[in-house]
Amino acid sequence: MENSLELVITTSLNAWNTHIDRTNKLFNELTDEQLQMEVSPGRNSGTYLLGHLAAVHDAMLPLLDLGEKLYPQLEPIFIRTPDKSGPEKPPAADLRTYWTKVNDTLAEHFNKLSAADWLTKHTSISEEDFKKEPHRNRLSVLMSRTNHLASHYGQLLFLKK
Amino acid sequence: MENSLELVITTSLNAWNTHIDRTNKLFNELTDEQLQMEVSPGRNSGTYLLGHLAAVHDAMLPLLDLGEKLYPQLEPIFIRTPDKSGPEKPPAADLRTYWTKVNDTLAEHFNKLSAADWLTKHTSISEEDFKKEPHRNRLSVLMSRTNHLASHYGQLLFLKK
Repeated sequence: MENSLELVITTSLNAWNTHIDRTNKLFNELTDEQLQMEVSPGRNSGTYLLGHLAAVHDAMLPLLDLGEKLYPQLEPIFIRTPDKSGPEKPPAADLRTYWTKVNDTLAEHFNKLSAADWLTKHTSISEEDFKKEPHRNRLSVLMSRTNHLASHYGQLLFLKK
Repeated sequence: MENSLELVITTSLNAWNTHIDRTNKLFNELTDEQLQMEVSPGRNSGTYLLGHLAAVHDAMLPLLDLGEKLYPQLEPIFIRTPDKSGPEKPPAADLRTYWTKVNDTLAEHFNKLSAADWLTKHTSISEEDFKKEPHRNRLSVLMSRTNHLASHYGQLLFLKK
């Protein structure tokens, strides 16, 4: 069943890559001015969601045991704090760079992981709990983050004219 | 590796179930009046998205070779036609019933599928193409529809006060 497992990992990675590509395409279509708009009245701005996605994907590096965050400064602004609540956000141009760099770095690591690697534990679960709940593996993080991305992508679409 | 494969299928089904539960919770919180609102100005109404999700999930039955659609009348209204373009929509109460029934029916089938079943082809690909592209299996449909649901869930959230 080794091939079957690899097939499933490939399917999961394809879903991730599809959503990254789709979101990149959307961000490329949107101007910095459009990104500054709220995706819906009273909701997050596009800039906030761009920073939020960059921060959440950056946090996948330590969570998947692939290294340190590249931009730890993003978390207090884009994960621990809601939009329009105080901290100044980096310029959209910088956030675009962070977003691309984080995803490129993840892709480099993903290319090196074997199918079996994906089934090892992520770093937010203890060895003991992982023995009882082996589905809390790196692959579940990938799937969960793909869905997270899809969810915000659906919102970001509203910034298009 | 049989156990590993089953683990991955379980992870995928968990992701699906998490999003179904989350979306059910949201639909239960929203009144029929709230559902009639557009999720963002000029965008789809909640009622349309409810019907759209019910129609797309209903279409998973034949796509996954699990049987006929339960509500084939939904497709012309909620897949082939955009919102506010003509055809009268069923009442929200009916759409809620369809949505629940379709997902319950899928769950019954999913409970009976083996891990190996998930790696067989869906019905929109030929045997010949599937030999060359074995990742176009039923599991890829499940993942893709989970992401589709997550994307619209992110939009439906805007109906909450």
